[in-house]
Amino acid sequence: MKIQVVQNVLRANDAIAAASREHFNKLGLPVLNFISAPGSGKTALLERTLECLKAKRCAVLVGDLATSRDAERLGRHCENVVQINTGKGCHLDAAQIEAGLKNIPVDQLDWLFIENVGNMVCPVDFDLGEHGKVALISTVEGEDKPVKYPTLFQKATCVVLTKVDLAAVSGFDRDQFYRELRQVNSDVPVIEVSSRTGENFDAWLAWLEQFRLAVRQP
Amino acid sequence: MKIQVVQNVLRANDAIAAASREHFNKLGLPVLNFISAPGSGKTALLERTLECLKAKRCAVLVGDLATSRDAERLGRHCENVVQINTGKGCHLDAAQIEAGLKNIPVDQLDWLFIENVGNMVCPVDFDLGEHGKVALISTVEGEDKPVKYPTLFQKATCVVLTKVDLAAVSGFDRDQFYRELRQVNSDVPVIEVSSRTGENFDAWLAWLEQFRLAVRQP
Repeated sequence: MKIQVVQNVLRANDAIAAASREHFNKLGLPVLNFISAPGSGKTALLERTLECLKAKRCAVLVGDLATSRDAERLGRHCENVVQINTGKGCHLDAAQIEAGLKNIPVDQLDWLFIENVGNMVCPVDFDLGEHGKVALISTVEGEDKPVKYPTLFQKATCVVLTKVDLAAVSGFDRDQFYRELRQVNSDVPVIEVSSRTGENFDAWLAWLEQFRLAVRQP
Repeated sequence: MKIQVVQNVLRANDAIAAASREHFNKLGLPVLNFISAPGSGKTALLERTLECLKAKRCAVLVGDLATSRDAERLGRHCENVVQINTGKGCHLDAAQIEAGLKNIPVDQLDWLFIENVGNMVCPVDFDLGEHGKVALISTVEGEDKPVKYPTLFQKATCVVLTKVDLAAVSGFDRDQFYRELRQVNSDVPVIEVSSRTGENFDAWLAWLEQFRLAVRQP
């Protein structure tokens, strides 16, 4: 009974997501869904990314249980930011994305970024119509997360290892991280960055541009 | 329809949890449910806590989507450790706790600790029969989490601020943290610790002992 209902909810979500994706494809608009635990640095990554992409037209939909904090931070770098408050909801769903886009000029954008609710588990199952999922993990969370929370890393299009400026001080074991991540996903690209110092942002921006072009010219 | 089913699931969970709590009360066995984001340091806190509580008889039930990593770490300090793998499940439920206790001599314990799945949202709604919820937040996650994920902090019996040895290097704003936490929960006790250095563990152990005595002699 519970399983049946959950399946129905997912099916309804997937139908909306499929329609959104078709719309994004027609526009040639690349859409990325950023997923991680709370505090891995999704907002910080997007802040610096928006700053670097000044020449591009971007929009961000950002989910949190409460407050408009993240939208306020992102709004300093981008005109089109919509905060979605989920109340007790542990993930964004496709209908929330559809509604969130109502006031955004999607036909005039180069990028749509979705910052999901901070949660490594539930957001993974909900397709939002995106073209790829970016999984973030910070060095201070510990190297063992890919094997303990494998579903996110299995489905990720790109893994961003954040807060590399804190790797040494937090005792992050880089070898173990890569060895175990490869058990879960043998070929996902990994980009190590510090959103605070800007370390390695060139590689991240290059990945984004390559991804954008692949969506635009399929 | 979805809401109805979710309510039924919660009702069934709460019935099992209530029976467990009655059993724990009869035994005078204090039970704490540790909840936080992945990587906040639940396992590290429990490792050092078990080490400090050597004179006490402890058991730990620990939840993760996959692997027995945490049970292996905790098993070095404690005989009675059970890993519960939830697969895609985003929280522990009362039936899993009931099943997990089958091979543990609960009538011979001074403490039962439950380490929930790393998730700041979903575990909050599922009563496991515990006497209190310990909410962990690490300094490296950022000071804004209490207002962005308020439900956990509203229901917490105690807040443990972890990784205080990394507070300075991560730019943690202690004043903002306390000011905003107090908006969400005006009187929950907060204990700042480093499980790596042992900083302030005296205060944490004192809180635990006071809590244990309150459950034993209600």
